[in-house]
Amino acid sequence: MKIVLVRHGESKWNLANKFTGWTDVDLSEQGYKEAEEAGELLKKEDFNFDLAYTSYLKRATKTLNIILDIMDLHWIPVIKSWKLNERHYGALQGLNKAETAEKEGEEQVHIWRRSFDTPPPALDKNDDRYPGNEEKYAELSESELPTCESLKMTIERVMPYWENEIVPQMKKGKKIIVSAHGNSLRALVKHLDGISDEDISSLNIPTGRPLVYEFDQEMNVKDKYYLGDQEEIEKEMNKVKNQAKK
Amino acid sequence: MKIVLVRHGESKWNLANKFTGWTDVDLSEQGYKEAEEAGELLKKEDFNFDLAYTSYLKRATKTLNIILDIMDLHWIPVIKSWKLNERHYGALQGLNKAETAEKEGEEQVHIWRRSFDTPPPALDKNDDRYPGNEEKYAELSESELPTCESLKMTIERVMPYWENEIVPQMKKGKKIIVSAHGNSLRALVKHLDGISDEDISSLNIPTGRPLVYEFDQEMNVKDKYYLGDQEEIEKEMNKVKNQAKK
Repeated sequence: MKIVLVRHGESKWNLANKFTGWTDVDLSEQGYKEAEEAGELLKKEDFNFDLAYTSYLKRATKTLNIILDIMDLHWIPVIKSWKLNERHYGALQGLNKAETAEKEGEEQVHIWRRSFDTPPPALDKNDDRYPGNEEKYAELSESELPTCESLKMTIERVMPYWENEIVPQMKKGKKIIVSAHGNSLRALVKHLDGISDEDISSLNIPTGRPLVYEFDQEMNVKDKYYLGDQEEIEKEMNKVKNQAKK
Repeated sequence: MKIVLVRHGESKWNLANKFTGWTDVDLSEQGYKEAEEAGELLKKEDFNFDLAYTSYLKRATKTLNIILDIMDLHWIPVIKSWKLNERHYGALQGLNKAETAEKEGEEQVHIWRRSFDTPPPALDKNDDRYPGNEEKYAELSESELPTCESLKMTIERVMPYWENEIVPQMKKGKKIIVSAHGNSLRALVKHLDGISDEDISSLNIPTGRPLVYEFDQEMNVKDKYYLGDQEEIEKEMNKVKNQAKK
């Protein structure tokens, strides 16, 4: 059993160094290119899929569509869920990471970005950015609608989805790709690799790099690897760490 | 209650004047443009969707994706079904329409194209073009796999899907768009407009033009109209008729 996880290609706000969260920004030009490269790599390595999962955010959906286009797999079912959305960044959404570090201090921003269980400042429910004001989240109950999320809170919605939706399909033999986000994928990787609450803070998932997990029949991880240039990937994983320096 | 039907934008084989059927050809450059125009028009006219249906063929899926992109609706569920595929053109798939008219006679080609219940020549099951040899149709039973289809045979798979899948969702209040094909949409239009087996032969659905149906509570058609320049649409509906002249 095998699954491929991919973080969406660079978005316009990755590029602008802004806190994005549930803001539905498009891919940057570089992001489109990264998605294409991911598709080419998966095709070259003879991957095949018969089921795909993605979030409600277009940077993930479009990354997936580009990959499916290159792999000639437009016909496979694509299941979209808000449970695979990025971590909700609360009242930080839309702010520049470096400017926020200037204003609030690097230490504070580091905590908001990397603390396991300290959420960023919450959104007011009258705020336009509150998902309860968006049609696409109309199906969510009041208690499901976030005003902000820590990584811990993100894990609490991602993991039940993984266990109850994705794993059963994998066990049925489905060949699956998941196109999602930095933090929804960190939630999965934390679980799969058994990373502690402390150590997860230093794990960064680069954009547009297919991450393959192989499992035995008991869903124990047998192997894990990124496709592509390993040295480049290493560099990208370190770059993410430095975004919120002043 | 309202639904929007759209035939995919021009494909590379519409352009090459070839019989396409289930051959999975991409959109032409003009086809991408038509899909974009359809999206812009639907957006301008304030349409909104919360559910989409399309076929297993990428010219329909991609037309839909382009429309959803422009309307900022990438998050809505998209249900794909082979039952919305184009009519299967049997052993004619891949042949040039005008050359076939030259060889077999205009009259014969007209019958294959426009007869209600005469199917085109059947594919051999060893033929690479037989859908039973494609992974994407692996779920179909032997009896579901076509070797060729008349419009009548197409109707026999499209209409149960309409009645059992799409109509119940419409009755639940879903705002639906269907991105499909010349003949799968003719099947629907024949039913909705009550067109006879004889008269359906002269009905042509232009590519990339949103076709709106409005219904009363008993699913009677209250109104029907194409969005866009009515004169242009009229011209396009007539153009389709002349493809198989020598």
